[in-house]
Amino acid sequence: MSTLPTDRIVVETTLRVRYAETDAMGVVYHTNYIIWFEVGRGEYSRHMGADYRTWEESGLFLPVVEVSCRYLSPARYGDLVVVSTWVEEARSRTVTFGYEAHMQETGKVLAAGRTVHVCVNREGQPVQIPSEWRDMMSKRT
Amino acid sequence: MSTLPTDRIVVETTLRVRYAETDAMGVVYHTNYIIWFEVGRGEYSRHMGADYRTWEESGLFLPVVEVSCRYLSPARYGDLVVVSTWVEEARSRTVTFGYEAHMQETGKVLAAGRTVHVCVNREGQPVQIPSEWRDMMSKRT
Amino acid sequence: MSTLPTDRIVVETTLRVRYAETDAMGVVYHTNYIIWFEVGRGEYSRHMGADYRTWEESGLFLPVVEVSCRYLSPARYGDLVVVSTWVEEARSRTVTFGYEAHMQETGKVLAAGRTVHVCVNREGQPVQIPSEWRDMMSKRT
Amino acid sequence: MSTLPTDRIVVETTLRVRYAETDAMGVVYHTNYIIWFEVGRGEYSRHMGADYRTWEESGLFLPVVEVSCRYLSPARYGDLVVVSTWVEEARSRTVTFGYEAHMQETGKVLAAGRTVHVCVNREGQPVQIPSEWRDMMSKRT
Repeated sequence: MSTLPTDRIVVETTLRVRYAETDAMGVVYHTNYIIWFEVGRGEYSRHMGADYRTWEESGLFLPVVEVSCRYLSPARYGDLVVVSTWVEEARSRTVTFGYEAHMQETGKVLAAGRTVHVCVNREGQPVQIPSEWRDMMSKRT
Repeated sequence: MSTLPTDRIVVETTLRVRYAETDAMGVVYHTNYIIWFEVGRGEYSRHMGADYRTWEESGLFLPVVEVSCRYLSPARYGDLVVVSTWVEEARSRTVTFGYEAHMQETGKVLAAGRTVHVCVNREGQPVQIPSEWRDMMSKRT
Repeated sequence: MSTLPTDRIVVETTLRVRYAETDAMGVVYHTNYIIWFEVGRGEYSRHMGADYRTWEESGLFLPVVEVSCRYLSPARYGDLVVVSTWVEEARSRTVTFGYEAHMQETGKVLAAGRTVHVCVNREGQPVQIPSEWRDMMSKRT
Repeated sequence: MSTLPTDRIVVETTLRVRYAETDAMGVVYHTNYIIWFEVGRGEYSRHMGADYRTWEESGLFLPVVEVSCRYLSPARYGDLVVVSTWVEEARSRTVTFGYEAHMQETGKVLAAGRTVHVCVNREGQPVQIPSEWRDMMSKRT
């Protein structure tokens, strides 16, 4: 069921569903999973030694240029959710992250997705990702 | 540049960027475009005579099971954004919507995406979309 | 029932409740009313000729330093809500806005609140509000 | 500087600022502190043995009827923030929570606030808070 890669470093982040994240169907509103992916991506970058805050302090940004997500099972208020994050591909100017969210208690997969990012400078122009950061981000097991 | 279909009814919704929708890059945070797609979808359903509130009052729900979005150009606080919404495909149990967001002033395309929905009942079980609603939702020009 | 002042310019903004703004109680999550107040404040500033975007372009910012809100009746998905906004007080470095949100259809008051803002420069230091802007913002009927 | 009460049980929750929570001023958008208060309130209720999920499963709800917050210092993306939560007062039908958010690293207070809740049933009618829950929620040190 799970789509986790076996040849990548996968970083897990656990979070608890906020009431603010639910909607009138009684479950988590769909864009919040994508915000959780952002949380997972932040943890991943810290874990790999390339904290995204440092990127921005250096004048480099990684805006999202593409996102996709499939929803498999709903989460509810108070649930503990684990987000697994890995790098699918790091190229000279782009990085692609993969994600999977599952229920901590049961392991049931809730959602799976990916985001593509392009590296830009303060002026918003695409630039090369510094090679040491690309290496840190895409280090394998 | 635009990806608007020529053989579908396309419903436009205009909204102004809220400060709450911006992020530390000074532009709209990426999941908010997907929330705007939800706004567009609501307008579309009202326009076609199948207000989504009526669906829920009848015990039918259309949760999102898949979403994708490409980001082409950023919007900023106070910008007027037009969301175009159409139905790509309506099947017995699923509906696929297409969206494009552009700047009202310049016509520049900001983002384009799609969502896939499955029709479920109060118990969350997939059910057939009533044919009259499917017809209303997928009526062509 | 209403708390609208009679001696101030009151600017109305109408918005429709988004599904993303609802929560598992089936009604609008409480912080979203405060985001609607932000929408109302933006409309108010534009209406008075002192568009908040111009403030920021001039290097002046009006962060919220205090907020309060009372909730009287819930709004639901698809409801049309009218936010009334006015300036309660404009001083040399602070502005206080008042707000009331009501259902467009019935006039029923949903929430009422206020925000206090301090004028700061790019460095975050409190500065005087330019007198012409203070005058525009606090112009009376 | 801190407003923490000395005679109450104060429950701490730590969270990391999400990029989604920042705005174009480069800092956390003001309503997100109030969402963090909700997170703190959830932790408080779990800690006291009266998990809010159990309330809802029993058909009791605690909607917010009043909120206020003062903002003292901004938080930024990636900051670790500690939210302290306590019960100011528990009456037969209402509960008042107090909150304070500070930077984990420096102890600097970021925001302080309170929320008032009324206990309602599924029909939204005010009802008495079961005395055992009121006792659990308001237990003192």
